[in-house]
Amino acid sequence: MDDFLPKYDDIRTAANCLSGNIVHTPMLESEKLNRLAGCRVLIKAESLQRTGSFKIRGAFNCISQLDELSRRRGIVAYSSGNHAQAVAAAAKSLETRATIVMPTDAPAIKINGTKYYGAKLRLIDRHQESREDIAHQIVKETRATLVQPYENFYVIAGQGTVGLEIADYCHQNKINPDFMIVPTGGGGLMAGCAIAVKEANPNMSLFTAEPEHYNDYAESLKLGIRTEINDANAFSLCDALLAPRPGKKTFAINQPLVTGGVAATDRAVLRAMAIAFDYLKLVIEPGGAVALAAILEGKLNLKDATVIVVASGGNVDPAIFRRAIEQAYVS
Amino acid sequence: MDDFLPKYDDIRTAANCLSGNIVHTPMLESEKLNRLAGCRVLIKAESLQRTGSFKIRGAFNCISQLDELSRRRGIVAYSSGNHAQAVAAAAKSLETRATIVMPTDAPAIKINGTKYYGAKLRLIDRHQESREDIAHQIVKETRATLVQPYENFYVIAGQGTVGLEIADYCHQNKINPDFMIVPTGGGGLMAGCAIAVKEANPNMSLFTAEPEHYNDYAESLKLGIRTEINDANAFSLCDALLAPRPGKKTFAINQPLVTGGVAATDRAVLRAMAIAFDYLKLVIEPGGAVALAAILEGKLNLKDATVIVVASGGNVDPAIFRRAIEQAYVS
Repeated sequence: MDDFLPKYDDIRTAANCLSGNIVHTPMLESEKLNRLAGCRVLIKAESLQRTGSFKIRGAFNCISQLDELSRRRGIVAYSSGNHAQAVAAAAKSLETRATIVMPTDAPAIKINGTKYYGAKLRLIDRHQESREDIAHQIVKETRATLVQPYENFYVIAGQGTVGLEIADYCHQNKINPDFMIVPTGGGGLMAGCAIAVKEANPNMSLFTAEPEHYNDYAESLKLGIRTEINDANAFSLCDALLAPRPGKKTFAINQPLVTGGVAATDRAVLRAMAIAFDYLKLVIEPGGAVALAAILEGKLNLKDATVIVVASGGNVDPAIFRRAIEQAYVS
Repeated sequence: MDDFLPKYDDIRTAANCLSGNIVHTPMLESEKLNRLAGCRVLIKAESLQRTGSFKIRGAFNCISQLDELSRRRGIVAYSSGNHAQAVAAAAKSLETRATIVMPTDAPAIKINGTKYYGAKLRLIDRHQESREDIAHQIVKETRATLVQPYENFYVIAGQGTVGLEIADYCHQNKINPDFMIVPTGGGGLMAGCAIAVKEANPNMSLFTAEPEHYNDYAESLKLGIRTEINDANAFSLCDALLAPRPGKKTFAINQPLVTGGVAATDRAVLRAMAIAFDYLKLVIEPGGAVALAAILEGKLNLKDATVIVVASGGNVDPAIFRRAIEQAYVS
């Protein structure tokens, strides 16, 4: 199965698997935000998801597939935080043990969250060691199953249920969306969502959103080939979106379905977080706010369009959130 | 109609009127919160409602009833903020003019929000003038219709749709709630919710939640008669919940249905806001967090129970929110 890519029906199957185990997150709209953006914006608030991000969808769907023997051997994952918490929580629900490889500089809220669900933590210095290598080494030693953050059939299918809920909501409310913008790291969320929404709305234009200096997906889409961007001097507040290159599977899915990519500065991200606080009463983490930030920076011509913006997570340390809402913003 | 009290069917009718005009807000749950509270807590997140609080439900339902002539004459309301914004937004949607009487010391976020929707503002010093008197005077002069914040058949029926959504969610997810705790000022939200949830779950115990020093509803329920608490030296961050006595209509509904009332200190409210930020990624205003605060203070014996907690609004100025999440809290 691992060599195949998920299709629409696989996402429907994932939705059945997830039913009752995740939050059906709301689509939120603000008259003030619409006026500010100059278009109709519908926010899919995955920040309200169990474990604070969409990642529980893929992790739960993937771990659900494991047979009894595999569950006894346990699972391994590497992650800067949201996938880590999701895998830990799903493993706990599905009664298997998880070992998570995380960088020492992940936000405290994400490290503590992962510990909370009872996962075994292996903290590494991400400048010295490769988390992938260490995860593969643990797999070799313990015969545990690796739950990849995005290069995994069931993970992509699980993330796709976000897109399914978006399409269902638009259908029920007679909304014809023109655009969908999705925060993108390795590309799993975009891949799953693209498959789901294109089924219902083939004319919709899809864009990835990334932090400035980490826009490898936008570059790859432009060049038509997976391209690495790895500037050792770059910095971004969007800890969830620092993957240096698109996944192979995710790019195979996204390339024919996604129009292009946009990027946002940290400054724009902090402003988007403040606007989401003020207008929508949402706590969004920097990486989760990058799609909203990009459209508020006017990176796309969306005049009078109907635009779906995914807010992918809300796991932000209080100090960063305080900084965001301290700034001046439109009221 | 004004002398009658709404019944279950009136709330169902209100739900039809509101359909498509409000957000069907989610019920959120956190494993961490459950562990902290020692019971199963389901948060009805009305902070995510249009205009940032449940108040749009009652305001929209009430203004929808007005005939053409009344709509041309416009409407009047008095409010510390959430009802003001809701009436202004509903009036705009329903194409009538609104004049709102507000205290000068209402939070800036609420005054600006009300202005935003195009209402005419009349700011008063609440220590010098009675907002009710001024509103009645405007009614006399302009023949506009007064939309009371809680002493109104259609307003109570509209707020009751919160309870309807709670009961429907519990039914769909096979949840049998034991308790429901509702932030309470004049008592309109509790009255509507009590009618709605008691229809489906007659054995559920209901409690009002109020700020310390403003617990007139709890006192009134205890004494069996509407009782005023008006301590000129008292202070509370919960600007939405400072009504000095229960409404006449709301008390007539609540007295036979509500078991009692609990109160929370500002300190507990700030902590509840921090916990909602951390565990649920919600922005809750002080008044909206008072029910969560009261249960986290252990004001009721809820051990292993299933508890519905209404988070009634999210309109909080950034400075207060920053103060809440700056405090130490359990992670």
